[in-house]
Amino acid sequence: MPTPEEIIIRIVRDAWNIYVERANKFFGSLRDEQFNLQVAPGRNTAVYLLGHLAAVHDNMLPLLGFGAKKYPALEEIFIKNPDRSGLPKPPLAELKQAWENVNAALKEHFDKLGTAQWFEKHTAISEADFEKEPHRNRLNVLVNRTNHLAGHYNQLLLLNK
Amino acid sequence: MPTPEEIIIRIVRDAWNIYVERANKFFGSLRDEQFNLQVAPGRNTAVYLLGHLAAVHDNMLPLLGFGAKKYPALEEIFIKNPDRSGLPKPPLAELKQAWENVNAALKEHFDKLGTAQWFEKHTAISEADFEKEPHRNRLNVLVNRTNHLAGHYNQLLLLNK
Repeated sequence: MPTPEEIIIRIVRDAWNIYVERANKFFGSLRDEQFNLQVAPGRNTAVYLLGHLAAVHDNMLPLLGFGAKKYPALEEIFIKNPDRSGLPKPPLAELKQAWENVNAALKEHFDKLGTAQWFEKHTAISEADFEKEPHRNRLNVLVNRTNHLAGHYNQLLLLNK
Repeated sequence: MPTPEEIIIRIVRDAWNIYVERANKFFGSLRDEQFNLQVAPGRNTAVYLLGHLAAVHDNMLPLLGFGAKKYPALEEIFIKNPDRSGLPKPPLAELKQAWENVNAALKEHFDKLGTAQWFEKHTAISEADFEKEPHRNRLNVLVNRTNHLAGHYNQLLLLNK
């Protein structure tokens, strides 16, 4: 019988995997030119959301203590600035690759993480604060990033392809 | 020090509360006539999403073993059928009230639930299946319904009010 800790890790990882797979399937269904469509008039394009999600997931690597970001240049274009910032975007093929690579890197680290390590603090909180707020752990990051992904995935579904 | 079980319940409940509060704030920011706006051309209206979320959250009451649904009529209109089904919708004020009431009822039950009870099976799985799949518990339902809510909340943000 799995322990409650093992059960909850399974729940949180399953939810993450479901939305990563849904997003993969959606991005895989778009022709290249459709990545320039907006999810609603005047709103983000699919290519921007692809870059945004890749950047946010890339940031999870250092946040979870898994090492440096793989694509640090994405943050400026896809997190700190909005879609029509005028900043040039990397080619679509590179963004698709970044999205695949960061999710694969996260999965590799998740697979190696022991049960207790999921309950360890993430790197954006100090030891002192973590003593007072012990819920600010790795699992918390994954729960919140899954909600973030679910939100943007549902926006992508509105795109008229 | 809270136990790992208590910590994860806090994480999952916090994430739920964040999105319920965001949705409350958003719905509260709309003038009545704006509830008829679509989140994107040809897509769901805000009033449909309000009814849909109220219906899905109402369904959580029996699913979590908290008793009967409060608004069983919503399911046919807002879950089984799409926005422009032709089925008459209840008045907006009733839907707003339903949304408030089902979330309040859920909160009341969550507050009373003991730690171990969060790890008990939900009502849509048999005892036999739960032995094989012990992650299909109440926490799992809340994790998944939070992702569902986050998805529709992000769609609502696209509405041009």
